[in-house]
Amino acid sequence: MRNTFGNLFTLTTFGESHGIAVGGVIDGFPAGIEIDMDFIQSELNRRRPGQSHITTARKEADKVEFLSGVFEGKSTGTPIGFEVRNQNQHSQDYENMRCLFRPSHADFTYNEKYGVRDHRGGGRSSARITIARCVGGALAKLALRKLGISITAYTSQVGSIALEKDYHLYDLNTIEDNPVRCPDQQKAKEMEDLIAQVKGDGDTIGGIITCVIKGCPVGLGEPEFDKLHAQLGAAMLGINAVKGFEYGEGFAGVTARGSEQNDVFIPKADAAETTEDAAVNQDVAARITTKSNHSGGIQGGLSNGQDIYFRVAFKPVATLLMEQNTVDLEGNATTLTARGRHDPCVLPRAVPVVEAMAAMVILDNYLLNQTIKL
Amino acid sequence: MRNTFGNLFTLTTFGESHGIAVGGVIDGFPAGIEIDMDFIQSELNRRRPGQSHITTARKEADKVEFLSGVFEGKSTGTPIGFEVRNQNQHSQDYENMRCLFRPSHADFTYNEKYGVRDHRGGGRSSARITIARCVGGALAKLALRKLGISITAYTSQVGSIALEKDYHLYDLNTIEDNPVRCPDQQKAKEMEDLIAQVKGDGDTIGGIITCVIKGCPVGLGEPEFDKLHAQLGAAMLGINAVKGFEYGEGFAGVTARGSEQNDVFIPKADAAETTEDAAVNQDVAARITTKSNHSGGIQGGLSNGQDIYFRVAFKPVATLLMEQNTVDLEGNATTLTARGRHDPCVLPRAVPVVEAMAAMVILDNYLLNQTIKL
Amino acid sequence: MRNTFGNLFTLTTFGESHGIAVGGVIDGFPAGIEIDMDFIQSELNRRRPGQSHITTARKEADKVEFLSGVFEGKSTGTPIGFEVRNQNQHSQDYENMRCLFRPSHADFTYNEKYGVRDHRGGGRSSARITIARCVGGALAKLALRKLGISITAYTSQVGSIALEKDYHLYDLNTIEDNPVRCPDQQKAKEMEDLIAQVKGDGDTIGGIITCVIKGCPVGLGEPEFDKLHAQLGAAMLGINAVKGFEYGEGFAGVTARGSEQNDVFIPKADAAETTEDAAVNQDVAARITTKSNHSGGIQGGLSNGQDIYFRVAFKPVATLLMEQNTVDLEGNATTLTARGRHDPCVLPRAVPVVEAMAAMVILDNYLLNQTIKL
Amino acid sequence: MRNTFGNLFTLTTFGESHGIAVGGVIDGFPAGIEIDMDFIQSELNRRRPGQSHITTARKEADKVEFLSGVFEGKSTGTPIGFEVRNQNQHSQDYENMRCLFRPSHADFTYNEKYGVRDHRGGGRSSARITIARCVGGALAKLALRKLGISITAYTSQVGSIALEKDYHLYDLNTIEDNPVRCPDQQKAKEMEDLIAQVKGDGDTIGGIITCVIKGCPVGLGEPEFDKLHAQLGAAMLGINAVKGFEYGEGFAGVTARGSEQNDVFIPKADAAETTEDAAVNQDVAARITTKSNHSGGIQGGLSNGQDIYFRVAFKPVATLLMEQNTVDLEGNATTLTARGRHDPCVLPRAVPVVEAMAAMVILDNYLLNQTIKL
Repeated sequence: MRNTFGNLFTLTTFGESHGIAVGGVIDGFPAGIEIDMDFIQSELNRRRPGQSHITTARKEADKVEFLSGVFEGKSTGTPIGFEVRNQNQHSQDYENMRCLFRPSHADFTYNEKYGVRDHRGGGRSSARITIARCVGGALAKLALRKLGISITAYTSQVGSIALEKDYHLYDLNTIEDNPVRCPDQQKAKEMEDLIAQVKGDGDTIGGIITCVIKGCPVGLGEPEFDKLHAQLGAAMLGINAVKGFEYGEGFAGVTARGSEQNDVFIPKADAAETTEDAAVNQDVAARITTKSNHSGGIQGGLSNGQDIYFRVAFKPVATLLMEQNTVDLEGNATTLTARGRHDPCVLPRAVPVVEAMAAMVILDNYLLNQTIKL
Repeated sequence: MRNTFGNLFTLTTFGESHGIAVGGVIDGFPAGIEIDMDFIQSELNRRRPGQSHITTARKEADKVEFLSGVFEGKSTGTPIGFEVRNQNQHSQDYENMRCLFRPSHADFTYNEKYGVRDHRGGGRSSARITIARCVGGALAKLALRKLGISITAYTSQVGSIALEKDYHLYDLNTIEDNPVRCPDQQKAKEMEDLIAQVKGDGDTIGGIITCVIKGCPVGLGEPEFDKLHAQLGAAMLGINAVKGFEYGEGFAGVTARGSEQNDVFIPKADAAETTEDAAVNQDVAARITTKSNHSGGIQGGLSNGQDIYFRVAFKPVATLLMEQNTVDLEGNATTLTARGRHDPCVLPRAVPVVEAMAAMVILDNYLLNQTIKL
Repeated sequence: MRNTFGNLFTLTTFGESHGIAVGGVIDGFPAGIEIDMDFIQSELNRRRPGQSHITTARKEADKVEFLSGVFEGKSTGTPIGFEVRNQNQHSQDYENMRCLFRPSHADFTYNEKYGVRDHRGGGRSSARITIARCVGGALAKLALRKLGISITAYTSQVGSIALEKDYHLYDLNTIEDNPVRCPDQQKAKEMEDLIAQVKGDGDTIGGIITCVIKGCPVGLGEPEFDKLHAQLGAAMLGINAVKGFEYGEGFAGVTARGSEQNDVFIPKADAAETTEDAAVNQDVAARITTKSNHSGGIQGGLSNGQDIYFRVAFKPVATLLMEQNTVDLEGNATTLTARGRHDPCVLPRAVPVVEAMAAMVILDNYLLNQTIKL
Repeated sequence: MRNTFGNLFTLTTFGESHGIAVGGVIDGFPAGIEIDMDFIQSELNRRRPGQSHITTARKEADKVEFLSGVFEGKSTGTPIGFEVRNQNQHSQDYENMRCLFRPSHADFTYNEKYGVRDHRGGGRSSARITIARCVGGALAKLALRKLGISITAYTSQVGSIALEKDYHLYDLNTIEDNPVRCPDQQKAKEMEDLIAQVKGDGDTIGGIITCVIKGCPVGLGEPEFDKLHAQLGAAMLGINAVKGFEYGEGFAGVTARGSEQNDVFIPKADAAETTEDAAVNQDVAARITTKSNHSGGIQGGLSNGQDIYFRVAFKPVATLLMEQNTVDLEGNATTLTARGRHDPCVLPRAVPVVEAMAAMVILDNYLLNQTIKL
């Protein structure tokens, strides 16, 4: 619970935004997996601040150091400790926040819950702590790669600028071609311009990230309570600034009738006739597929071999570079103008975090599923 | 994990739709709480099949029997075992389902995962197993009542018929006045008619349930991963047929700017001037409130003393009383026409389940929060 | 935690000695295992009261009813709910205990912890609740049987009457030939007589149970904290009246030197020359064995393929049929003479409980071990 | 599970003997506790190698660095990450162990379980990883000090040299006055001489550590499975080289009768007459105590306010500085003579580890106990 994520493959994290380091311990990672350090660092680099003109200007190398659990290039099955030392804190930018509560931040609630808090840069509540998730996710991806499972997230909406087509109508290999991480290069430019404009206003903006998991075998997920989508939902809702999660048809599907939304089963041989993407994993359930995938790849809480897809809603960042009303620790009215370096829109840097969380959920469930039968 | 819900206050469940009984074990329930058996049964009655013309015709008394953990009318702090015997199974209605997979049900995925399944009435994947949740939720409500915390859910949308106003503009005491469980009696009638019409077509329809938690103290929730909304989201997504969860402004909030959506803090004395509902719990944070509640009562993953509100999307029920294409266990194409007794729309009976899950999450977090300080 | 045992294969229990029923929920049991109901009941019968003149006279059929999770004779992978209804309570025998604390029982500590307790027959603290463990253990044994793993416990000491030889010098198939469950028929008679004599005195006596696990593959156990012997120890210490646990050479081994106690590895081909039992599982580590087994089958917290053996110390039962001094709820001095029906020595009936707990630990670890590699 | 210890107050560890660092993450530590860094380091120093002529000659400063969770001298309620960098590894001493299995070590079992292992200095199975436990235990002690709970362990037996009296007849403040950590200075000298002699022989020796917990309130522990002594037992059995655990009268108590061993309750006012130590915590159960404490301070799995005491058996260290037979990775017979620097007897350095584990168990249960009532 709390700062540990997962059941069998677990990530336990520590660290504050302006503390000495952020890091964690990964437990239950399978033994004998080759650890590609360059890949892990590259995943961190996708999350790193200062990567483009539309992200925060904080400069951090975010260089990860592994302290244990890897021997001669392979995982040993023992816990993997790791850390990223903080370097570019400007803690003095936050001195005025010691005594007041930033609107829509965790300052007030942390203060009430714990009675004490590290106010510098949001302390534990900062999105900086998602570094540890990216490391855990990168390791999970290395294991999933061996299993033929891939996970891809992208920005599908910023403010009111939204992609109009479903994920399978885009080339998801083009996501890294723009700083927004969007597979539609035209929309990406519009999103980038909007973020730049919002930033110029000292304001912030939200959006939606879509994520697709391909190659997942049938049967992952653990009813009654740990349905696969419930785990994915909890993982996504645990990311800073997330306000909503939906999979398959999601909220839009409530207006359709069952006869429109059911995914009828068909013999695999007939699948070629379908007009929708129905990429059932070849290794399982080899003879059966579905004509459509309104379910989003999960039925009865278990993966059904189709692509799993879901959407995650992010609110606009709470830190504004404009004056806001607030109160101090004694409850007296005052005003606040943030200093510090902040993202006007979290989505570009949240894309790898979404992937990381999804990767950890899938690997954890894959391991759990190995225990269903003797 | 799996069939256990919660960390300190836990519910472990068992049972299949057409098995001998459904039930569970509640652990970690505080000692010394008066157990109002009539209230518990009344909560089950709200979930019971056959309660109106727009629900399934299956007739079950759903009479709960407590087997342990309650002594002379009070909880003893020891585990509370309970069961509801199944009575009105028509298992023969499902004999033809032994050898085929119902579209968008769990038949296929369970079969692949476990290699064996109880096909009668959906077996373990049936919504009948939510009985145990209602018992757990009713107990949690008894404890929360002592703490001044109340939880109310209602149907806010069926198909395209949606309430137009926010929760605080309705009288939530009128929810039980109609079979749909909607606080707008006019809309409720429209929803009821739509469900009846859909039922007449042998079809099904989805919708949205809104839930409001009042009186929650500041500080419930456990970052980094067990943020209060992440726990609520997982709880809701674990309910049968749920496809989405959002809290506060949710998905709609992605188009607003931070300056529009931040909830600025104000001295409590000024709250009377606000035009929005801001019912901060009186006992905590007595001098501070927020001018608005776009956050949905949760900031930084912790309750902030404001009302917590969220929305849950339900897909249309997968069981249709019309012919559908499907395949048999060998993957051969065939057709299916469901027999059995089914709900054309789950929402009216899902309202108490949403409340029950929310109640268990809040009580669990309340207990956890007692361990933050010595 | 609390009333749930195990990590992946879990048993959650409920019930009090004089309540309506005792029972539980088993989760994570592998799917597709044939459930031999006669075997399960026979295991319960070994624990049943009233089985001989040296056990309590309480008459209970202890007939178990399964409520879920088994379909057409096989486990389905879903939770297995079960219960045993209490029948032969004589609750009036305990009316005088409502207001006083029995020495060395849980009355006082439960009263202080929970503020309320079911005083009848010890309530939740009664050894009657080990029924649920025997059901869980019986299921685990069914799974382990498929894996070639067997578990046998026996009474090796009662009072000062102790077996003099190691387990491999007895025929463990003869344990059920006497009411004490001891493989040395001569010593068994002496133990039986001692227990009868102690019973006649209104007194009680303790002893030691030895347990042997054969056929365990190499590698079960989860360092750092869940070493196999740590899990076995916790399981045994959780049994009523247990005061100590040791494995391998245990306490006696502290006086030997390392050079005497190390188990040197030898090629399997040489094992025939050894004078000690070294029955390494044939399927693993096929070429290597150890010359001795002072380690008790566990090295570095992991099973090493040798027989696992350990010993469990049971104190004399706290309930005496003679007058004892005690205090009442207000702390006033008084005296107590127990009524009710009690065991003068728990060991004969504890033998199946020891086996059950060991079986659950081994199965749980076997499942966990399936997740170490992809 | 695995590398995480505890339920609410948890310690997750990482690190290998010759890796970059050992360390961990502490979660659930109460907020607002003053963190006395000097005390924590002093606890580590008690475990540090090279502290006397009877411990290993490996020179390590074992200087702990805290990375998070402490702000301006106080705990913040967020996870506390920490590490100790390894400095004085002589990994080349272990090069010959890459290809063979040291008798009674974890080499063989790790190799079979994980398929890969860090052979240097025992890797993950080294007692060096108990550093993290000492840090966790030191923090727990800081919290327990506030609660008036103290924990003291000492060496009570080395080889055949054993203390003859019970703990309350020694001055436990004198334990640090000799390198063995024994409160009987005469016996301590004998033990020290024995260890030196054994070391001279290239051999090793085991012993027993006794631990006493004073000031524990009534009611700690969580039946049915997490009885306080079951948790303490698991904690102790998880320490390297431990082969047995007993509390109260333990194994010796099996020969006594119930009438001799029951701890009868008496009014507190009469306690002065008793000849045995019965230091009931003053704050709870103020009017009642017991005449004796054969139970070891735990009844029904819950602390009863008396002193808790238990004993832990350690086997002789497996690493000998003499030639031993063994096999290589292919199963061929060979011989081994250890190089490296090793303890001839672990007990002096294990004393703080025993205390640390006990402290973590007690704090965890204290926190859990805060959730029993609303």
